[in-house]
Amino acid sequence: MLRTLRTSQLARSGFGTPSFGLRFNSVGRAFVFSQTGEPKDVIQVLEYPIEKPLENQVLLKSLGFTINPADINQLEGVYPSVPPKSVQINNEDAAIGGNEGLFQVLDPGAKSGLKKGDWVLPRKTCFGTWRSHALVEADTVVKIDNTDLTKVQATTVSVNPSTAYEMLKDLKEGDWFIQNGGNSGVGRAAIQIGHIRGLKSISVVRDRPDLEVLKKELTDLGATHVITEEEASDKLFSKQIKSWTGGKIKLALNCIGGKSATSIMRQLGAGGSIVTYGGMSKKPLTFPTGPFIFKDITAKGYWLTRWADKHPEEKAKTIENIFKFYREKKFVAPPVNISTLDFSKGNDVVLSEFLDALGKAQKGGGKKQLVQWVEY
Amino acid sequence: MLRTLRTSQLARSGFGTPSFGLRFNSVGRAFVFSQTGEPKDVIQVLEYPIEKPLENQVLLKSLGFTINPADINQLEGVYPSVPPKSVQINNEDAAIGGNEGLFQVLDPGAKSGLKKGDWVLPRKTCFGTWRSHALVEADTVVKIDNTDLTKVQATTVSVNPSTAYEMLKDLKEGDWFIQNGGNSGVGRAAIQIGHIRGLKSISVVRDRPDLEVLKKELTDLGATHVITEEEASDKLFSKQIKSWTGGKIKLALNCIGGKSATSIMRQLGAGGSIVTYGGMSKKPLTFPTGPFIFKDITAKGYWLTRWADKHPEEKAKTIENIFKFYREKKFVAPPVNISTLDFSKGNDVVLSEFLDALGKAQKGGGKKQLVQWVEY
Repeated sequence: MLRTLRTSQLARSGFGTPSFGLRFNSVGRAFVFSQTGEPKDVIQVLEYPIEKPLENQVLLKSLGFTINPADINQLEGVYPSVPPKSVQINNEDAAIGGNEGLFQVLDPGAKSGLKKGDWVLPRKTCFGTWRSHALVEADTVVKIDNTDLTKVQATTVSVNPSTAYEMLKDLKEGDWFIQNGGNSGVGRAAIQIGHIRGLKSISVVRDRPDLEVLKKELTDLGATHVITEEEASDKLFSKQIKSWTGGKIKLALNCIGGKSATSIMRQLGAGGSIVTYGGMSKKPLTFPTGPFIFKDITAKGYWLTRWADKHPEEKAKTIENIFKFYREKKFVAPPVNISTLDFSKGNDVVLSEFLDALGKAQKGGGKKQLVQWVEY
Repeated sequence: MLRTLRTSQLARSGFGTPSFGLRFNSVGRAFVFSQTGEPKDVIQVLEYPIEKPLENQVLLKSLGFTINPADINQLEGVYPSVPPKSVQINNEDAAIGGNEGLFQVLDPGAKSGLKKGDWVLPRKTCFGTWRSHALVEADTVVKIDNTDLTKVQATTVSVNPSTAYEMLKDLKEGDWFIQNGGNSGVGRAAIQIGHIRGLKSISVVRDRPDLEVLKKELTDLGATHVITEEEASDKLFSKQIKSWTGGKIKLALNCIGGKSATSIMRQLGAGGSIVTYGGMSKKPLTFPTGPFIFKDITAKGYWLTRWADKHPEEKAKTIENIFKFYREKKFVAPPVNISTLDFSKGNDVVLSEFLDALGKAQKGGGKKQLVQWVEY
């Protein structure tokens, strides 16, 4: 917890009331929680003074952060990785929320090797990205080359595109994969990365009034075929899929579970794998026995956190590759909804606007929620 | 189909009526099926003359064969490996049933390298073991060293003990595994092979009036713990399992599916695998999403046929290892029910007695059904 020691000491000493009286730009804000539960009941705004870095530290300001399902699950206390309780609020230990975000160096300290203005990303998860400023050990962040990158591209790179990139890693040019949640953040990234790498993909999406619009959008991103959940689970339609793929789908990516997972698993060719990285339907995985035994199907899970925290250097390379795709205009950022929070409106307003964004993220199905702070 | 060419030619030429008039010991019998369906409706007795081997052939007589679930599924037409239609009966192409059995060389032919009296096993599955005599290419069988082996041990080695041996192969001394169907043929073999190899095991069995007797029997075979299905699915009892294993169960072997598979999967430690080799409950596999993602659980299948037909030399080594266990008195054959079929009673009686044994195999849960022929 070294990285927030000084902040937390101050918080412990009673700092953190809105009436503190520092200028806005010398006070940082963070969304923290001392207990887990319904997000709206447990999130509080912590104020803290913005201080000079010690020798190995850097002072960062936020250029934006996201609200992802895993962040919400951490708040609810139903996620296996738990952010450290590195601060105090109202005399209780608390954790700063958020795992994904972009920061800029305000003060590089004496020994970080960073420069003022550099863009950095957290090296590991549980960084606590839901804050305006961070005073951290320099080795907890990775500098990125921001040439020709937008803030949105850099803020949203760490979770969804990285997950898609890693899950597709073992496929070879010409290989087929199928995925549900084709319109999700990971789904859209997988379509594009697959296309760039010469893979062929079938994306399953929910039926909707504007289905043809969505189909066009996803095929424009590089999807080979876009089909509905109903089609994916239809026995006759399976023949259509077989005629497209020759029955040789190697990989199924599942973020939904329940029937949807069963459908895409059934499309796999001999020796194929279904990789589960989410469970949006909250329904268990249900697989017939036969394909496991006779078609040599494997079911696995993928958890970016485990991989990224174990292999931060590989993760940094993956991110560099995705930035390269952005610079080559081969890759498009996910649709985002940006909330811009303004300190000067008071903490109650800031919290309420943040909770609005979080509510939209909880509902899911729409755009990725991205939060930025008004600059002073 | 070379190996049965001459037989099938004869069968095609109209041979195969009970009134053929050869002496018993010059006429072979086989249980064959020209169509798939309910076993009692489709199995017929084929008679064929017992002939001298050509240069690369050997003439074998059966020392016994088993009736396994896969054999029955082949008859029913619901198994992915299909025995070749190598004979004819009543002018229809037909397959000889059976995948597991022991044969003895009656006439080694000119070039087989075998001797009269040698014991041999089929090199691959779909051999058609349900017959009294076989005239086959010499390279379709493997000679075994029958020193200190019983016929029952050699007849039953190819399927259950080999499956158990292979599925446990990657575990190391001291590793824990859990299995359902602890009292099945594979279950009993896994208990013993695990014990020999220094593995620790938890076997799940159905509750029954004589539970304590079965528990003693299986712990005498080498099971570390024997528990009931109710215990395996009980949350409190999970703590007991954790205290035994330190939460480090590496492998779960599943031949049942449904809730039973879910229960043993939940006991796996991080990075563990559940391997499905059967689906006795006919219920699908149902797994919660979380353990796949956060505990890095993998679900796979194991199909002995695929492995054995791809790697017949490895299979022969596995069988040699199991015979070694038998000779060292470390391994006990499964409980068998032996039916001895007598040609002289006529084909109707022989068929009816065979169908009785098959009915018992279909019911399952009891002893392994082994069939032998009366010798003349």
